[in-house]
Amino acid sequence: MRILGVDPGLRVTGYAVLSLSESAGGEVIDLVEAGVIRTAGPEAGIAARLRKVHDALDEVIREFSPQALVIEKLYSHYKHPSTAILMGHVRGVVCLLSGSRGVPLHSLAATHVKKSVTGAGHASKEQIQRMIQHAFSLKSLPEPCDAADAMAIALAFAMQNKNAGRRAAAETGRRNAA
Amino acid sequence: MRILGVDPGLRVTGYAVLSLSESAGGEVIDLVEAGVIRTAGPEAGIAARLRKVHDALDEVIREFSPQALVIEKLYSHYKHPSTAILMGHVRGVVCLLSGSRGVPLHSLAATHVKKSVTGAGHASKEQIQRMIQHAFSLKSLPEPCDAADAMAIALAFAMQNKNAGRRAAAETGRRNAA
Repeated sequence: MRILGVDPGLRVTGYAVLSLSESAGGEVIDLVEAGVIRTAGPEAGIAARLRKVHDALDEVIREFSPQALVIEKLYSHYKHPSTAILMGHVRGVVCLLSGSRGVPLHSLAATHVKKSVTGAGHASKEQIQRMIQHAFSLKSLPEPCDAADAMAIALAFAMQNKNAGRRAAAETGRRNAA
Repeated sequence: MRILGVDPGLRVTGYAVLSLSESAGGEVIDLVEAGVIRTAGPEAGIAARLRKVHDALDEVIREFSPQALVIEKLYSHYKHPSTAILMGHVRGVVCLLSGSRGVPLHSLAATHVKKSVTGAGHASKEQIQRMIQHAFSLKSLPEPCDAADAMAIALAFAMQNKNAGRRAAAETGRRNAA
């Protein structure tokens, strides 16, 4: 299973593709690809900036054919509502790609992502970067943080699915034993 | 010149196509088409809802080949930020269509639209519907108000361009007279 995590932003959108596969020792999560999509400044206009994000992310989808597209859930309160509305424009384009390319959309609460990856629901950007570096044995801290955030989102989803798989296996084991 | 006005909403998105053309008596604004795009309820999922708006609006663009796509400017303060963020998702998809289909995007302040159409910057939905009915000699009040709002946005832009044309013509006249 390939999982695409996306952290949408009008200036920088992070993305990460992970694979969740079976091995002799159980399920393994691997980092396949991660990066960021940078748009030109506000002078380029929102239409061109959104098109850039759309087309670049569409290319990632075509290249890696993910079976899940994972983003953060919306909060109920944003510190900067105007920025959140603009982020909503990009998030809308990401959701649209899920619909138009047939990649099922999942959303995870930000605190759930942080807790899954670092153990703390209110981890800092740097703590996330460190844990991601550790999880995938990267030589250096994943930069920029938008890419690390996308990896964290995809990783939290992968861990959830891995656990679900393990639970299912344990249940089958119990059933077979009974 | 054909103008596409759009009033984005996750449940209902209004759209209107106007034409601005030359006639013996000067420039004339005509209503070509107006309607709404309704999405299924929240249970359909945001990806499918955004895809519906995208595909339906794309069809309108293909059919009428507008030379301008006009939406309302974002405010700085929304009464309901969560709703505004969801509206931002749809607005993002509308802006994306401007970029991907090459239809130049324009945005007008809501108060400017209301003032242009009704004479008052804080007109009610009903006042707008009445003025739109009058402007295009419609038999009944344009319903739902989302369609009337899209007509108002397109009309305000058309009036602005008509005036700009008139100013340009007057200046040419003055130059020719000088």
